[in-house]
Amino acid sequence: MGPDFSKRQGKIRKLMEEKGIDVLLLSGQEDIYYYTGYSGLREDRLFLILPFNDKPKLIATPLESEARLRYRNTILIDSVKDFMTEFKGYEKIGFDEKQLNVLLFKEMEKLKAKLEPFGKSLEIPRTTKDAYEIRQIREAIRITGKVFGSLPPLSGKTEARISNEIDILFRKHGVDNAFENIVSSGPQGFYVHHKPNERTLKKKDVVLIDIGCRSNGYCSDIGRTFCRRSGKRERKIYGDLKAIHDGIVDFIRAGISYSEVEDLQKTLFSKNGYKVIHSFGHGVGLTVHDPTGDVLKENMVLTVEPGIYIKNMGGFRIEDMVLVKKGKALMLSDSITSE
Amino acid sequence: MGPDFSKRQGKIRKLMEEKGIDVLLLSGQEDIYYYTGYSGLREDRLFLILPFNDKPKLIATPLESEARLRYRNTILIDSVKDFMTEFKGYEKIGFDEKQLNVLLFKEMEKLKAKLEPFGKSLEIPRTTKDAYEIRQIREAIRITGKVFGSLPPLSGKTEARISNEIDILFRKHGVDNAFENIVSSGPQGFYVHHKPNERTLKKKDVVLIDIGCRSNGYCSDIGRTFCRRSGKRERKIYGDLKAIHDGIVDFIRAGISYSEVEDLQKTLFSKNGYKVIHSFGHGVGLTVHDPTGDVLKENMVLTVEPGIYIKNMGGFRIEDMVLVKKGKALMLSDSITSE
Repeated sequence: MGPDFSKRQGKIRKLMEEKGIDVLLLSGQEDIYYYTGYSGLREDRLFLILPFNDKPKLIATPLESEARLRYRNTILIDSVKDFMTEFKGYEKIGFDEKQLNVLLFKEMEKLKAKLEPFGKSLEIPRTTKDAYEIRQIREAIRITGKVFGSLPPLSGKTEARISNEIDILFRKHGVDNAFENIVSSGPQGFYVHHKPNERTLKKKDVVLIDIGCRSNGYCSDIGRTFCRRSGKRERKIYGDLKAIHDGIVDFIRAGISYSEVEDLQKTLFSKNGYKVIHSFGHGVGLTVHDPTGDVLKENMVLTVEPGIYIKNMGGFRIEDMVLVKKGKALMLSDSITSE
Repeated sequence: MGPDFSKRQGKIRKLMEEKGIDVLLLSGQEDIYYYTGYSGLREDRLFLILPFNDKPKLIATPLESEARLRYRNTILIDSVKDFMTEFKGYEKIGFDEKQLNVLLFKEMEKLKAKLEPFGKSLEIPRTTKDAYEIRQIREAIRITGKVFGSLPPLSGKTEARISNEIDILFRKHGVDNAFENIVSSGPQGFYVHHKPNERTLKKKDVVLIDIGCRSNGYCSDIGRTFCRRSGKRERKIYGDLKAIHDGIVDFIRAGISYSEVEDLQKTLFSKNGYKVIHSFGHGVGLTVHDPTGDVLKENMVLTVEPGIYIKNMGGFRIEDMVLVKKGKALMLSDSITSE
């Protein structure tokens, strides 16, 4: 069964009602896809006008005329002036302050309507996933597992080359990357967002691979650390990290707050003498970094990705994806090779 | 020889001086790369503070700490509040109104400084290309030519499959797509921005392939129409289009205005009984759609891409890239298979 768009629109309209908002201007491409099922080429810049009392209207440029075939209520608009006339009659317009640029905002300020930043509320409907979404995310995880399972021998190749081979593997499975691959080796792993470069991997390097793909719009985000041939100290750190990771996974359930999990991560790290560098995880869905809100709810999909970074040695991170449940969270990615 | 960053910064500082701007906040990732040579992972969200009287300062989050290795004057900032203190002492701040979001703009409005949209002026330095840039663009074109030259037989495959194979070919040459491939077949070509789908190509289809890649940040954007096995009418349209295309290429030179070329395209189209659907072309550089300004200048790189779209038949587009010269423009992509 496909997504239930009117149910999704109902969720956002309820939030609009609470704020007395007549109409919402959506400019995030993932939001537009979420509420309509429509996506054009990546380069298309679409807008969605979502009135409280009427059906949503997709705004595309004439070059994107194909949108009309796939989303009935589409208007092709070529000028900012024509765009602004679409807001006639509305008194309070909600907008996404993270996605809207200043140029368009300045035009909207000329309208005789009150403008209301809606971004934080906009995040709410997408935090929990319906059955359709969970299936897509599982598929993106399955493919990422296949890619991890068919990695070539790492030693002797450059990080950039391995990253390139991962790109090709994803495409052979018919999907795109959800984000730029992280392949970090040896000391370079100290930098959390390391960009793969021309360093050649050595046999004893700690190697961190953090990759994901997008299937029908939905993302995966999985990280593995390879250090079986590294030294004893590296193996010890990996073992400590695995225990911390498992401790966090065991702790996650609906009803607890995000910051409680952060506190647990901090406790587990310091008990082992490590320093927390980044948060334990994040939501995943139509974006790689989906919001979670303050309290964890059933059917949120989260990453759990504690990381330990040691200067002159490398980066250790184990990143899995879990589905939040009333009881213990469901691990979605544990079948993926773990070292 | 690599890019001359201080020369580039000189160009933008001259424009700042004209407007009496103390400091510029750059938030477009291509602009940051242009003025500093720094690029992180695609997902990193960097800012550049470019003072009139001091060296530029790269702003990254602590997760992007690697930036400090590759760009000396980098500060890691974790909060909007800390970010805002970086503007202390400045009286007039220029910003990019197309790239800056409303959330950050609202914070900047709280500063005791005048805010000045700078976006249009920001476009000027990047419109003409230096020797280094032209080399990178030529390389992106060369690789795109290789991909066109090694396309598998098209007939019998779906558009989506062909697009996927093009993705893999680009990556086998070590580059990423500059934009999502357009592969349109038969009647689907009527839609300019057609998204490849599950339609299977037939032998007599008009097939339009419009692709490009990014080499060291610089883009190519090349389109070819395949209709050798289509009917006589299709061949006639293709011939007309080729003549229009060549007429535009012959006309382009430094000193004429963009709108003069548009006028010529209109004349050539209507003389042949066709309707203009989109502009003749656009700049190409660090973005696929680089601005050109009103007047064509020496060392601009432009696409020439007239297109004819016939309902129930298909899309015809021949897209080449040229380098604007004082005399006739230099064709950069004519060695790429033409049909």
